[in-house]
Amino acid sequence: MKKISILYPNRAGARFDFAYYVDSHMPLSIERLSAHPEYRGVSVERGLGGAVPGSPPAYVAMCHFLFESVEDFLAAFMPHAAELQGDMPNYTDIEPVIQFNDVLISAQAGDLTRPDQ
Amino acid sequence: MKKISILYPNRAGARFDFAYYVDSHMPLSIERLSAHPEYRGVSVERGLGGAVPGSPPAYVAMCHFLFESVEDFLAAFMPHAAELQGDMPNYTDIEPVIQFNDVLISAQAGDLTRPDQ
Repeated sequence: MKKISILYPNRAGARFDFAYYVDSHMPLSIERLSAHPEYRGVSVERGLGGAVPGSPPAYVAMCHFLFESVEDFLAAFMPHAAELQGDMPNYTDIEPVIQFNDVLISAQAGDLTRPDQ
Repeated sequence: MKKISILYPNRAGARFDFAYYVDSHMPLSIERLSAHPEYRGVSVERGLGGAVPGSPPAYVAMCHFLFESVEDFLAAFMPHAAELQGDMPNYTDIEPVIQFNDVLISAQAGDLTRPDQ
């Protein structure tokens, strides 16, 4: 399984509208991307703080999409890239850090699964 | 639900032993932290690349722990902090970026849940 991570750096003076992001942008993104049969899930988080108490988080927000493969994500995303990227100025002026990841361990309380084994 | 993210920046010349990390360090971490009743799950990923094809990932590895609250994580982690942090030199010389996050959306294929609603 692969994870596509979209990280929004927490820079001074940046704009990030969580209401629009959670209530409009992400539902649209999920509707578009979950139409692909190899879509596996999504997680969206708001940064609260860093490891040192009272320190700011490195990222104001993170979004992680799960797909069976990177190719599946690209097949799901590319037809909607203009629409989804065009919606970004409606909630932020931050240029996100994006990276593709191989999921090595994924476990919920009570189990431990190793997707690649 | 809260997510504790541990991100290992992908700097030139850095050392990261995935075999030790996945086969020794993470099983130890999960054993220690999952003993807490408010542990909810964990995900571990290896960075494959950035958004631009052929570009390196910003982070060589990421680890995300899910707990009901930040206080629950700290209660689970602090008694084992010396042991777990003391094991880090066995797999890396990278100083990780750590941040606490509020989980706003968590969904798997076929559902959409909003933990805070």
